[in-house]
Amino acid sequence: MTHSTLSEFIFGDLSTAQGRLRQARMARVGVFHDSTLTPLDPQAHEPIQITVRVGADMAVKTMTLYYTTDRSLPQPGVDGELPMQRIQLEWDTLQWCYLEQWAAIIPGQESGVLVRYAIAATTTTDAVIGCPYVDLTALKQLSDAEDFNFEALEKKFRDNQPQVYEFYVDQQTIPDWLRDAVIYQIFVDRFAPTPGKDFKSPGDRSGIYGGTLNGIISKLDYLVELGVSCLWLTPIFPSPSHHGYDPTDYGTVEPRMGTMEDWQRLVREAHQRGIRLVLDYVVNHFSNEHPAFQAALHDRQHSTYDWFRFRNYPDQYDCFFDVPHQPELNADHPDVRDYFISHGCQWLEQGGDGFRLDYAHGVSHAFWSRFRQATRQVRADSVTFGEITQPPSVVRSYAGRMDGCLDFKLLELLRGFFVFESLTVRQFDQALTQHYAYFGSSLVLPSFLDNHDMNRFLWAVDGDKRRLKLAALCQFTLPHPPIIYYGTEVGLSQLETVGRLEESRLPMVWGEDQDHSLLTFYQQLIALRRQQPDQWRQRRQSWLIDDAHRVYGYGCGDYAIALNNQDQAITLSLPAPWQQGPLVLTTESTTVWQAQTAELSLAPFSGAICRRWT
Amino acid sequence: MTHSTLSEFIFGDLSTAQGRLRQARMARVGVFHDSTLTPLDPQAHEPIQITVRVGADMAVKTMTLYYTTDRSLPQPGVDGELPMQRIQLEWDTLQWCYLEQWAAIIPGQESGVLVRYAIAATTTTDAVIGCPYVDLTALKQLSDAEDFNFEALEKKFRDNQPQVYEFYVDQQTIPDWLRDAVIYQIFVDRFAPTPGKDFKSPGDRSGIYGGTLNGIISKLDYLVELGVSCLWLTPIFPSPSHHGYDPTDYGTVEPRMGTMEDWQRLVREAHQRGIRLVLDYVVNHFSNEHPAFQAALHDRQHSTYDWFRFRNYPDQYDCFFDVPHQPELNADHPDVRDYFISHGCQWLEQGGDGFRLDYAHGVSHAFWSRFRQATRQVRADSVTFGEITQPPSVVRSYAGRMDGCLDFKLLELLRGFFVFESLTVRQFDQALTQHYAYFGSSLVLPSFLDNHDMNRFLWAVDGDKRRLKLAALCQFTLPHPPIIYYGTEVGLSQLETVGRLEESRLPMVWGEDQDHSLLTFYQQLIALRRQQPDQWRQRRQSWLIDDAHRVYGYGCGDYAIALNNQDQAITLSLPAPWQQGPLVLTTESTTVWQAQTAELSLAPFSGAICRRWT
Repeated sequence: MTHSTLSEFIFGDLSTAQGRLRQARMARVGVFHDSTLTPLDPQAHEPIQITVRVGADMAVKTMTLYYTTDRSLPQPGVDGELPMQRIQLEWDTLQWCYLEQWAAIIPGQESGVLVRYAIAATTTTDAVIGCPYVDLTALKQLSDAEDFNFEALEKKFRDNQPQVYEFYVDQQTIPDWLRDAVIYQIFVDRFAPTPGKDFKSPGDRSGIYGGTLNGIISKLDYLVELGVSCLWLTPIFPSPSHHGYDPTDYGTVEPRMGTMEDWQRLVREAHQRGIRLVLDYVVNHFSNEHPAFQAALHDRQHSTYDWFRFRNYPDQYDCFFDVPHQPELNADHPDVRDYFISHGCQWLEQGGDGFRLDYAHGVSHAFWSRFRQATRQVRADSVTFGEITQPPSVVRSYAGRMDGCLDFKLLELLRGFFVFESLTVRQFDQALTQHYAYFGSSLVLPSFLDNHDMNRFLWAVDGDKRRLKLAALCQFTLPHPPIIYYGTEVGLSQLETVGRLEESRLPMVWGEDQDHSLLTFYQQLIALRRQQPDQWRQRRQSWLIDDAHRVYGYGCGDYAIALNNQDQAITLSLPAPWQQGPLVLTTESTTVWQAQTAELSLAPFSGAICRRWT
Repeated sequence: MTHSTLSEFIFGDLSTAQGRLRQARMARVGVFHDSTLTPLDPQAHEPIQITVRVGADMAVKTMTLYYTTDRSLPQPGVDGELPMQRIQLEWDTLQWCYLEQWAAIIPGQESGVLVRYAIAATTTTDAVIGCPYVDLTALKQLSDAEDFNFEALEKKFRDNQPQVYEFYVDQQTIPDWLRDAVIYQIFVDRFAPTPGKDFKSPGDRSGIYGGTLNGIISKLDYLVELGVSCLWLTPIFPSPSHHGYDPTDYGTVEPRMGTMEDWQRLVREAHQRGIRLVLDYVVNHFSNEHPAFQAALHDRQHSTYDWFRFRNYPDQYDCFFDVPHQPELNADHPDVRDYFISHGCQWLEQGGDGFRLDYAHGVSHAFWSRFRQATRQVRADSVTFGEITQPPSVVRSYAGRMDGCLDFKLLELLRGFFVFESLTVRQFDQALTQHYAYFGSSLVLPSFLDNHDMNRFLWAVDGDKRRLKLAALCQFTLPHPPIIYYGTEVGLSQLETVGRLEESRLPMVWGEDQDHSLLTFYQQLIALRRQQPDQWRQRRQSWLIDDAHRVYGYGCGDYAIALNNQDQAITLSLPAPWQQGPLVLTTESTTVWQAQTAELSLAPFSGAICRRWT
C-alpha cells in the first residue's frame, strides 16, 4: 500500500475547498477585528492603527473605539473615545456586495502600558453592535447556507457584548536562543522509562507506556550527542490521559512521570548540557476532573462557576471539540487568567525556559499578551510559541503576543512537495518566498515535518528514509528553528495509518532498534545548522527550479542546497560562488561532487549542501 | 400567476452564487490589470499608479511596465521602462494562497497625451508572461474545475502577447446636460410608425412592426409634454433584425426607419424642443452581412480579414454569444478603430448628441478612450455612456473612458427592493449609500427600472401600477439621471414572461390605450426632477428605516421622500425640517398630509415627496 493518497487535515475544517469557502463567506458578513495591529508589534510612542472589517448588509453608520491605558475596562463615555472612519470601500464579487474597512488610530504610548479597547458600531437603524459580530441571518440566506454549523456559530457569538481587546506596548524582543534553536519534541509517556525499567505494554495505544522525567534525564547525553538545544515536552502535569492535554492540576508533575524533584533534576542536568526546556501549556481547556470544574459542577454558586460556559447547567457546557471531559475555560476571566499566569510563572521559577501553547487560537490575544508580559518578568529570556492551526493571516495576528507560532503552513508545503507531490518546484519555491516575506521577523516560526497529531513523515512516504532525509535537509536549511519529533532521527514510524491520533505515538526505540545511519545524518545536519545559525536566516536565492525533474536548488548564506525530489538520478551544475567549494553534507553516500567542474550527481531522492570558500 | 419568483439574469453568469465563485477564483489565478487607474481619471501632471494583481502560484520574480507618450507601441528596451514593485502581499483563504499586488507609477503628463503601456512579468523559472494572463492549469486543478468553461477561456487568452493599454490625460469633464437629463429609451421599431400609417402585425414578436424616425418626429410634442430632455434610440443603422444591434452599415439610416434627411429633420425638430438625441452604437460585433465580414469570408487576403478572429477559416470565428451571424470585431485593429470612430464622428456632425455604447465591456478600455477623445473634438458636449453588465469594480474602471455607465447594479437593487422583496429597507438603504460612495462623481450612472432585455417592471409586479409609481418615485429622487423605457409612463406591459427577449418590446400604445393617470404622474415626476436637478445630487440622508413595515424615508436637498413598500396603509411622522412644508408629489391621491402635525398617511404601496420651506 502506498500512502501518497493519505488525507491530510492539518487545518481541520479549512482543509477542504468547501471549508475555505465557508470561511471566506464568514469573513464577509458581520463586523470583525482580527486583533492584527498596525504596526504588528507597536513599540513605545508608535501610533497604532486598529482596523475593522464590515461585511455585507451590516449598514454601519458610525463606529467608535473606546480605549484605556490605566488598566480599567474601556467603556463608552470615558476618555479615549475615538470615532472610527471608513477608510476603504471595495466591491466583492464572491459575496456580491460592498465590503468596508473602518479604522482609528490610538496615539503612541509609553513602554509598559497595557492598552485595552473595545469597538461598537451603530447601524442605520440605530442598533448597537459589539465587535465581533457575525450576521447569522445573512449567512442563513446564502445559497450554500446548509454548509454552515449554525449551532456552533450561535454558541460562539451568542452574546453581543463588545469584546475587550488588549495589547502591551513594550520593548520585548524575541530571544536569540529561540531563533537559533534546534528543538526536539518529546511525547513524554512514549520517550523513555526510568532507567532499569521497560516500557509497559498497555495493549492499547492510548494506554500508559510509562515514559518519565527520569527517563528523559537518562537520555540527555543521547540528546546532546544528537545536538539539539531545546526540548519541548508534551504536558507533564497531572492528567488522566496518556497525552496530558487535559490537566487536573497545573502546579506539579504527573506522579506517573515523576516528582517536582525529578523536574528540578531534569532542569539542572539539561541546563548543564546547554539544553533548554519548553513546557506544553494548555489554557483553552482542562480535564473535567480538575477541582475547579468539579467545584462548579457541584455548586452553581461556587466562585469557579464563571470559569466555564455552561449552557444547560450542569450537563451542557462548552468543551473542546465537544468532548465532555475537556471543558473549555473563560481565559479572560480574571481568576482564570491569574490561575494560568501564576502557574506559568511558577514553572519558570522552577527552571522552565518557556512554553509551547496548546490550541492557542482558542484563547484571546489579550490573554497571551498578558501571559507573555508576566512570564517575561520572571525570566527575561523565556519564550512562548503557539499552536495555531489557522491560515497565515490569523497566525500573523499573534505577533507581539508571543515569540513564535508553529509553522503549520510550512508543514503543508513540505508535505505537499516531499510527500504528496502536489506542489511543483516552482510552486514550492514561490510559496516559501511569499510565506517568509509575509511574516518578516515578526514571529519565530518553528518548522516540523510531523508531530503527535498526524501520520509520521516516514509513514507517509512508505518508510522511504531517502525522502525523509531529503525533506529534513530542506527543513534545516530554512530560516526558522527546526523541530524533530522524537524518534524521527532513528527511523521510528507507525504500524497503522492515523485514525486515532495515537498511531503516531509509538514508544521510542533505543539501542540496536535505532537506525544509526539515519541518526548520524541527523547529527551532521544539526551540527551544521547550529554552527552558524544566522546563515540560515539570510535571503534564500533560488538557482535551480526544474519542474521536469523535480529538482530544486537554492542558496542561503554561504551554502548551496540541491534537492533531487524524484526517483531518477540527476547531474546538475552549481553556479558561482559554489563552484570549487566543498561538499559539506549529503543525504546519500552515492552523491558525487566534482568541485572542478561544479557538477553534482545526485541519486534518486537525495540532496546535498555545498559551501563556498569564504 | 404571480411574477415575484421570476428569475432575473441581469448579470448573466454572475447572477448565481456559482458564477460569482467562478469569477472570484478566476481573479485569484493569473496576472491581471483591470485598467483601473489611480487616480481613476488622471489629470494633467498627476502621477498615475498602475496596479497588477498576481494570483496563486504565479511565481513572479520581476515585472516591468513599458510605456510611451508619443503614440508609438510600447516595447521592451525603449524609454519609459518602469520596474514594478510588489506593494502588497496578502493571504487569501478562499484560494488558500498568497496574493500579490504589484505597481508602478507613470510620471504625470501634459494634457492631451495618449499614454500607451504594456506589462510583462518574468517568473522564477524565467518564463515571460504578458499581462493579462489566466493560469488555466491552476484553474483545472481546482476542486470545482468542472464549473469552468475552458473552451471560452482558452479562446479569450489564447495568445500570451501583453495587451496594450491606453488612456488619455485630458481635461474632459462630464457635460452638465447629461447629469441633469431625463432620458427616454425608444426601441425604434416599436415606438411610432410614420404618421398616417399603422404598426404592422408581423405575427412574430421578432418581426418588423414599422416604427420610423418620422414616427418619432410626430411624437416629439408628446415627449415634450412628458418632459424628457434626451432620447436614446436603439440602433437606427441598416440591419437585418428588428432590434438593429447587428448593423451592416454604420453610415446611414436603416431604410425601413427612414432616410438621412429624416434623421436631420429629427435632429432639428428635437433640438428646437430642447431634446437631445443619443444613438445606440455597437462596436463589439456587427452583422455577418456587413460588407467587411463578407469580404473577409470570401477572401482570406482581404484587408478586413484581420478585423475578425477566425479560428477555423472560414467557418469558425469569435462571435457575440456564439451567434454566427454576429461576428465579433478586433476593435483595437487600427482600421476597425478608424471605421468606428469616423462613423461616430460623422453622426455627431449630423447632429447626434452622443452614444449609448452597446456591450461596452466587450471592447477595450483603450478603444473607448480614443473614441471619447475623437468624438469630443467634433462635439465638445457630446456624451458616451456604456452598457456594462459587470460588477461595480469593472464598471468603475471605465471612469475617464466614457461619461457614464448604465447602472445595472442599481437596477438589481431597485428590483430587489420593489419587485422581489429580497432586500430589506436597511439593506436597500445601505447598498445605495455604499454604491454611490464607491463611484463618487467619476461616472454618470443613468438609472432604469427595466429595458428591452428583461421583463418590464410592470409585468414583474403583476401589473400593479402602484408599485411601478412607487419605484419610479425612488428612481427619480436618486442622484443620477433616470431613464424611462418607452411605454412605461402609460402602462405598457407584456403578454408573456420574457423567454425570448422580444416579449418586452411590444409596440407603444397611443391615445386612448394610454393610462393617462399614470402619464400625469410621470409628467409631474419629471417636472419635479428637472426643476432643480442639482437637488437630487445632494447627500441622501435616511430618516426612516422601518423593516417591520417596509417603510423607507430619506431626505435629499430640500425634499423628504417617503416610500410605503407594503400592502398596508401606514401613518408616519416627518422629522424637521419637513414639518409644515408642502406635499409636492404623491403616487396615490389617497395620501393625506397633515402639515401641522407632520403626519403623512400613505396607502399601501404608495409614496410621497414633501418639500421644506426655503
